[in-house]
Amino acid sequence: MKLYSYFRSSAAYRVRIALNLKHIDHQLLTVNLLKSEQQSADYMAKNPQGLLPALETEQGVLAQSLAILEYLEETYPETPLLIGNAWQKAQIRNICYAIACDIHPVDNLRVLKYLTSELGVDDDAKNAWYRHWVEVGFDSIEKLLSENCQFCVGDKPTLADVCLVPQVFNAIRFKVDMNKYPKIAAVYQHCNTLSAFSDAAPQNQPDAV
Amino acid sequence: MKLYSYFRSSAAYRVRIALNLKHIDHQLLTVNLLKSEQQSADYMAKNPQGLLPALETEQGVLAQSLAILEYLEETYPETPLLIGNAWQKAQIRNICYAIACDIHPVDNLRVLKYLTSELGVDDDAKNAWYRHWVEVGFDSIEKLLSENCQFCVGDKPTLADVCLVPQVFNAIRFKVDMNKYPKIAAVYQHCNTLSAFSDAAPQNQPDAV
Repeated sequence: MKLYSYFRSSAAYRVRIALNLKHIDHQLLTVNLLKSEQQSADYMAKNPQGLLPALETEQGVLAQSLAILEYLEETYPETPLLIGNAWQKAQIRNICYAIACDIHPVDNLRVLKYLTSELGVDDDAKNAWYRHWVEVGFDSIEKLLSENCQFCVGDKPTLADVCLVPQVFNAIRFKVDMNKYPKIAAVYQHCNTLSAFSDAAPQNQPDAV
Repeated sequence: MKLYSYFRSSAAYRVRIALNLKHIDHQLLTVNLLKSEQQSADYMAKNPQGLLPALETEQGVLAQSLAILEYLEETYPETPLLIGNAWQKAQIRNICYAIACDIHPVDNLRVLKYLTSELGVDDDAKNAWYRHWVEVGFDSIEKLLSENCQFCVGDKPTLADVCLVPQVFNAIRFKVDMNKYPKIAAVYQHCNTLSAFSDAAPQNQPDAV
């Protein structure tokens, strides 16, 4: 398998973590979002959506990080990341989507670019926008976590942690005050003691700047 | 089961379609987003995320439309909406997330409100924003559909159609030119010939204005 990745892409970061947790052998190919390489003809031929990540498998190229995560879950069921019965899986997916639908897309690089280039929003207002959507989302997620938890749901890493950790990484980068979210911060810290998470972190990628 | 819904909520509209396709008996309770009833103490006690939809089941309340759809898929496997092997399911989910992550959240009511109230964006620029993100997303999805298709993937309705139809409904409302997307428009038209889709449409809801 080949994963098309950019060190700071939250969505690629999710898939990097899952591949590590599941011990799936893969090759990492880097695509520079800042240079818009995701819209090059070569990459668009792989993923016509022109977004990261994409996973090249023997059957073809998969796009959309959450579709990739669900696919890996079905095809590599050892080390499951959706654990339990349908109700418990729904709790895990609830947190995944609270991040992957409600926070990340609104704060995505292309949205921030539109704010500044098309709407003339200045840097301060752009950063306030970023923090606003993280905080609205984290306010909700903090309520969903248990006291003294090490992971979002249960006592093992799940897809919820796979989605949460990259979002916290970016929240810290945009100076969100994590003291307001002690449970989220504790999960982030604990996950990063595991090499599957820390090896996937942006600063440990070959294209890190 | 009780579904908390608002006639124009795209995310609630998805769940309404899925409940109909799966013939799941349920009660509809309306929550008025324009009056911010989703943030009332009563509703927040049900769904601390303060968003629509929520599905009240015997086990408790589920939030996040995609988590609800996956839960219904696992617990009501008759009339499957994720059809085929892992690869085919990934194609279905790819389209779901291209809508539910890449288009809908950026054009959500609360984001549009922030644009106007916090950033002073006028109505024309707000509507241009709306259409921009729909068009970027539909440009991608149009490439993923087959010629002369009746549904997004295969010859039966799937979760991809469940997500696409509400997004097209809103695109038309915001005057996106659907002539640019003949394959998407054909799927939308065909789905709406089925009562599971048309019964779930905003204009056919008890709270429709």
